[in-house]
Amino acid sequence: MDEFEIINEFLTLNVKNRKDVIQGIGDDCALLKVPRGQRLAVSMDTLIGDVHFVADSNPEDIAHKAVAVNLSDLAAAGAEPSWVTLSLTLPEFDQQWLTAFHRGLKKIVDYFGVQIIGGDTCKGPLSITVQAHGFVPQQVFIKRNTAKAGELICVTGNLGDAALGLAIAKGELTDVDEDSKEKLLKQYQRPYPRVGAGIALRGRATAAIDISDGLLADVRHISQASGVGVLLRWERIPLSEAAKKVADKPLLMKSALSGGDDYELCFTVKEDEFEATQQALETVGSTCIAIGRMTGKPGVRVLDHDENVAIDTFGYQHFG
Amino acid sequence: MDEFEIINEFLTLNVKNRKDVIQGIGDDCALLKVPRGQRLAVSMDTLIGDVHFVADSNPEDIAHKAVAVNLSDLAAAGAEPSWVTLSLTLPEFDQQWLTAFHRGLKKIVDYFGVQIIGGDTCKGPLSITVQAHGFVPQQVFIKRNTAKAGELICVTGNLGDAALGLAIAKGELTDVDEDSKEKLLKQYQRPYPRVGAGIALRGRATAAIDISDGLLADVRHISQASGVGVLLRWERIPLSEAAKKVADKPLLMKSALSGGDDYELCFTVKEDEFEATQQALETVGSTCIAIGRMTGKPGVRVLDHDENVAIDTFGYQHFG
Repeated sequence: MDEFEIINEFLTLNVKNRKDVIQGIGDDCALLKVPRGQRLAVSMDTLIGDVHFVADSNPEDIAHKAVAVNLSDLAAAGAEPSWVTLSLTLPEFDQQWLTAFHRGLKKIVDYFGVQIIGGDTCKGPLSITVQAHGFVPQQVFIKRNTAKAGELICVTGNLGDAALGLAIAKGELTDVDEDSKEKLLKQYQRPYPRVGAGIALRGRATAAIDISDGLLADVRHISQASGVGVLLRWERIPLSEAAKKVADKPLLMKSALSGGDDYELCFTVKEDEFEATQQALETVGSTCIAIGRMTGKPGVRVLDHDENVAIDTFGYQHFG
Repeated sequence: MDEFEIINEFLTLNVKNRKDVIQGIGDDCALLKVPRGQRLAVSMDTLIGDVHFVADSNPEDIAHKAVAVNLSDLAAAGAEPSWVTLSLTLPEFDQQWLTAFHRGLKKIVDYFGVQIIGGDTCKGPLSITVQAHGFVPQQVFIKRNTAKAGELICVTGNLGDAALGLAIAKGELTDVDEDSKEKLLKQYQRPYPRVGAGIALRGRATAAIDISDGLLADVRHISQASGVGVLLRWERIPLSEAAKKVADKPLLMKSALSGGDDYELCFTVKEDEFEATQQALETVGSTCIAIGRMTGKPGVRVLDHDENVAIDTFGYQHFG
């Protein structure tokens, strides 16, 4: 099977064309129509075997995650996803692996109604690069450098589950009941990007980012880009029942504050917009928890019932 | 230096924003405006160290080629390039390497007036994925499945130089004068995509493809997609003086027919459009040579002064 056959068999997905796709896979270029009044938002991320995921993970999870992390970036911008390109590099042709990868890919693109419009397949060390494309009107595009002192900082969902799931997958966390294990692993393996929440935040969030590197690292991006400080309150950080059950407080703090891969949204709102924002997020099945406030004092601080929490890491970085 | 600093230092390029870039590098997403009346053409290609290029090649060449191969796909569609995203995976942080890579990147994006709007940097086995974006009005988008029997098949530029350059780089071709060596190596290391020619072919070429896998392989894509055959005449294939000087006939045929990396355009035109097309290409500094004809008989044939040429390869394929 050559690369063109691989693309046909496993990556084309035989889905019906979206109306905004004039030419999909199969030519030198895809040709696309951005609807009138919309701007194009794009995000590109690469996942590398044994760097971003265990290389012998379930290929269905790998496909899911490669798409999910990019849709999560679109969600943080308030954009509605439309198209995906995907470049897959594989050490060898492996039909079983490709079949599972294809299944994971099809599930997530169908779930979000996006279409794979192009890409590449090569032989080499396992890696996947995905670019996601979406639409958002210019005036409601959500940036990270527009937070102001006094605004509330909020998150969707629970934090730390993915980091605990990774610890379980790596065998670092063992004394765990089956139910919690399943829930935490799922958060790590199949994060669902907050696409609906991102759209609901249009015109409400003053700034946003998705939590991929860990809460503190991502909050710091908002803080530094906006030129304001952040004061977080540990006791307000939303934690799942499963997380509280399997982890002691130091591990909980590490997972929720510095663990990556949550793919929840972290955003700022004006105080008098908080309730309306909470209601808007509830309509898309998402919680909205205020975990602190933007301040005039630079830097990121965390209080635990008014005691300062020592921060020793801002999350994982390549070449760090 | 962490990944964010690498992006700032080496990939942002500090260029003035294009007017159609509302948000460039530095947020979760880039935000872009496709001009009214235009459609968006996109193409994504991955280059892998020691698969697509010798891993210890000049990083300036690697950067050039990673962008060039994608702009070449846009050229084949008649699209005008606008933006590029780039994901760079490096085994280690190497300032000297990155400085040279940056120089190559800046040269080619400045040359074509495109802007780098986003991407990713990771640690891992050397590879570069680029997605190029461009504009083309829908009615003049050039496809590969629209050639018809009776039409002429033409190419820009000379064929085979890049394959001979690769043979020289690999030390497989040694008895070569300095002047030819320099010319052939340059065609391999720094191909200039036929962006102007692609735009000049709007409304004239009935189908087109860029020659990346080798003439026969790429012609076969047009042939199969269009459901027509191809009859090429070897004696009409344009060859450079350098190629004719350093290679005997068997090597010339192999290089020009099956060697990849030429990044010239191969396209079909109606016979009575040929002269006007040739004139249009001359205005953008490109030749236009008719090398054969589309036929009703399926398959790709090559005649050498009316003798059939045996074809044993259709060019390089991954997993082939």
